[in-house]
Amino acid sequence: MAGTNRVAHHTDETRKALVNRLRRIEGQVRGIARMVEEDVYCDDVLNQITSVEAALNGTRKQLLEAHIRSCVVEQIQDGKLGVVDELMKTIGRMVP
Amino acid sequence: MAGTNRVAHHTDETRKALVNRLRRIEGQVRGIARMVEEDVYCDDVLNQITSVEAALNGTRKQLLEAHIRSCVVEQIQDGKLGVVDELMKTIGRMVP
Amino acid sequence: MAGTNRVAHHTDETRKALVNRLRRIEGQVRGIARMVEEDVYCDDVLNQITSVEAALNGTRKQLLEAHIRSCVVEQIQDGKLGVVDELMKTIGRMVP
Amino acid sequence: MAGTNRVAHHTDETRKALVNRLRRIEGQVRGIARMVEEDVYCDDVLNQITSVEAALNGTRKQLLEAHIRSCVVEQIQDGKLGVVDELMKTIGRMVP
Repeated sequence: MAGTNRVAHHTDETRKALVNRLRRIEGQVRGIARMVEEDVYCDDVLNQITSVEAALNGTRKQLLEAHIRSCVVEQIQDGKLGVVDELMKTIGRMVP
Repeated sequence: MAGTNRVAHHTDETRKALVNRLRRIEGQVRGIARMVEEDVYCDDVLNQITSVEAALNGTRKQLLEAHIRSCVVEQIQDGKLGVVDELMKTIGRMVP
Repeated sequence: MAGTNRVAHHTDETRKALVNRLRRIEGQVRGIARMVEEDVYCDDVLNQITSVEAALNGTRKQLLEAHIRSCVVEQIQDGKLGVVDELMKTIGRMVP
Repeated sequence: MAGTNRVAHHTDETRKALVNRLRRIEGQVRGIARMVEEDVYCDDVLNQITSVEAALNGTRKQLLEAHIRSCVVEQIQDGKLGVVDELMKTIGRMVP
């Protein structure tokens, strides 16, 4: 599996910001399950799912930026261009 | 707010399927927060976020379909065309 | 093929607006090919492609709305619920 | 404007492949305008627009990859990290 021997090197601040965003998203998803259980009107549930997707997209962009600015730049500077192949695969999955 | 006086009319089967999918997604988001805390390599975290978004998209489509096949069709048949305005707003937020 | 025996029933105004938007988009795509031929910097070309996609998305939503407000509503009112199956397939391709 | 003094450095092969793809897309958009003029059924037109968007997405990814593999890698290796800011803006517009 890609990344097996490697770790991320986030600053404490970045890591904390990412974890907080993800915990908030987790709570939102739990709330949506409850909305469905309580038969909340579909339009309202659909819009709430769309909000969660926007929040996930924001988190994903923040993480991608942290990744490019640290790991990718460093590895390119070290001449390890394999990181670009990986980056292209990852972006390829993110971009429609 | 749209939908205030209205409720969804899912079959028990649809409601249960939706809630199960959302609970699984909630667990996946919790897992991603843990991955970030444990400094898992960014590419792996990014791909996991992309998977969760795909799962949310699937859930959203299932819910939209249930909504159109029940609420929207019924209201159109009852001559309540306001449901189409709502539907267009909801789809407008879902479709890029 | 779906839609073989059927035609769209746009008002002249809607048809004209859609055709004008599509002609403008055609011109933009032609401009992007020229940018690539003239080695315009990639970021500028990428942003131009993103603009064209946004324009296509807008056109697609306008057409979907015209379709739902006329064909879909009429067929549901006539009890021809097969139109909902078609609509779900079409939306399924549009929505990520 | 970003990129004012800079040019792309595609190989002849890449440039030709991109231009060919874009010309084909231009022809597809022209065909869609004709479909609307001839009142082709909306579902078929919508699916054709969705196909063109997929083709544009493919072209955009091919161009992004060419850009990262040449310009971005070179500039990072030359210590010009401003290219990363630009890249983040461009990806930010591409990724939902």
